[in-house]
Amino acid sequence: MRDSLVAAAFELFLERGYEQTTVDDIVRTAGVGRRSFFRYFPSKEDVVFPDHEQSLADMTEFLAASADSDDPLVRVCEATRLVMRMYAANPTFSVQRYRLTREVTGLRTYELSVVWRYEKTLGDYLRTRYADRRDGTLRANVVAAAVVAAHNHTLRHWLRSGGEGDPLAEVDRALGFVRETLSPDAVPAGGGTAGEQEAEDVVVVITKRSTPMWRVVREVEASLGED
Amino acid sequence: MRDSLVAAAFELFLERGYEQTTVDDIVRTAGVGRRSFFRYFPSKEDVVFPDHEQSLADMTEFLAASADSDDPLVRVCEATRLVMRMYAANPTFSVQRYRLTREVTGLRTYELSVVWRYEKTLGDYLRTRYADRRDGTLRANVVAAAVVAAHNHTLRHWLRSGGEGDPLAEVDRALGFVRETLSPDAVPAGGGTAGEQEAEDVVVVITKRSTPMWRVVREVEASLGED
Repeated sequence: MRDSLVAAAFELFLERGYEQTTVDDIVRTAGVGRRSFFRYFPSKEDVVFPDHEQSLADMTEFLAASADSDDPLVRVCEATRLVMRMYAANPTFSVQRYRLTREVTGLRTYELSVVWRYEKTLGDYLRTRYADRRDGTLRANVVAAAVVAAHNHTLRHWLRSGGEGDPLAEVDRALGFVRETLSPDAVPAGGGTAGEQEAEDVVVVITKRSTPMWRVVREVEASLGED
Repeated sequence: MRDSLVAAAFELFLERGYEQTTVDDIVRTAGVGRRSFFRYFPSKEDVVFPDHEQSLADMTEFLAASADSDDPLVRVCEATRLVMRMYAANPTFSVQRYRLTREVTGLRTYELSVVWRYEKTLGDYLRTRYADRRDGTLRANVVAAAVVAAHNHTLRHWLRSGGEGDPLAEVDRALGFVRETLSPDAVPAGGGTAGEQEAEDVVVVITKRSTPMWRVVREVEASLGED
């Protein structure tokens, strides 16, 4: 029922335009009653984005299942990947909808509010995980925004290309860029004592310019020796 | 005329609520005709945000006046500061409006689309400045999103506190955090050979785990010795 309402709606949107299609037209084409429509969709706008509620619920559940040992940045990247998977599951539909949202201001605004909800979901999780850190809330908000921006960058590019190529590989690359750029301990806020961080086979040593050489060498040796 | 329309509108919004106030009510209170209202504001929503168009124009102009020698990240931080200055110029009005946008869904959506326009303005500038870089567009989008998130983090905090304290000092601190975290070359894309970067009095050395110790020490010595 739900799927046939979505199918009927898109058939009409493509045929005569979004604004020119009423909910009555949609239910008539789908062969159901008005009340059935509103049981599934609060408004005409919602039928354009039938999967976001489920996707947001999946994301929330995935983040809630996170273990304390999970790197929070890696976890939000994986959570964001779930959204791309939703788009990638149906390229034709995703591209059709993208074209529709470019034409109808109300749908673009709807989309902005959906993006904001994803960002907030990631931010809420990160705020909990970064609660003990200096500037934890600020860090959470900045990281969530950066991850969402990388996802949307890839998504937009893929949709504009007409849904060609592998958006999951592309989003992984973009999220990898964010992980590299935002490496959470690369530069400790306010400088401070020597720290070190691993990123695959890379060692990062941060030290004050005034640190004696023997201490720096000890830090580097300790880092390299950890294997 | 424009200012008195804004004043009349807010008087009524606070008195009887946003939804219950019509444009007719506003023009009657301001003592002007309907056409005067629509000369300044396309809709009732626009009178709630009377300064964003000017602020967006100021931001665009400020970025266009940028020299090639300006650090793009520093420039977008300064551009973002202009927005905070607009809010800080009238704390009472900013806080009143904030409370209004918490209550009225339509205004929150409007606000999201304004935020998106600021982010796009910063992103457009950064895309030009990063055009020659690997992943320049991605970098531009991620940096713009991070800067806007830091600004909004500070703004929200300030508005929730009722407009207490110095939001410009706070936004500078938050933007400083972004500059540290996003230091554009802190981790060269793809890892690779040893690099080094200065951030105030901090030295960052990045090296592959497999790099021989003597090479690491030479890099560290070279970095520390640059003073």
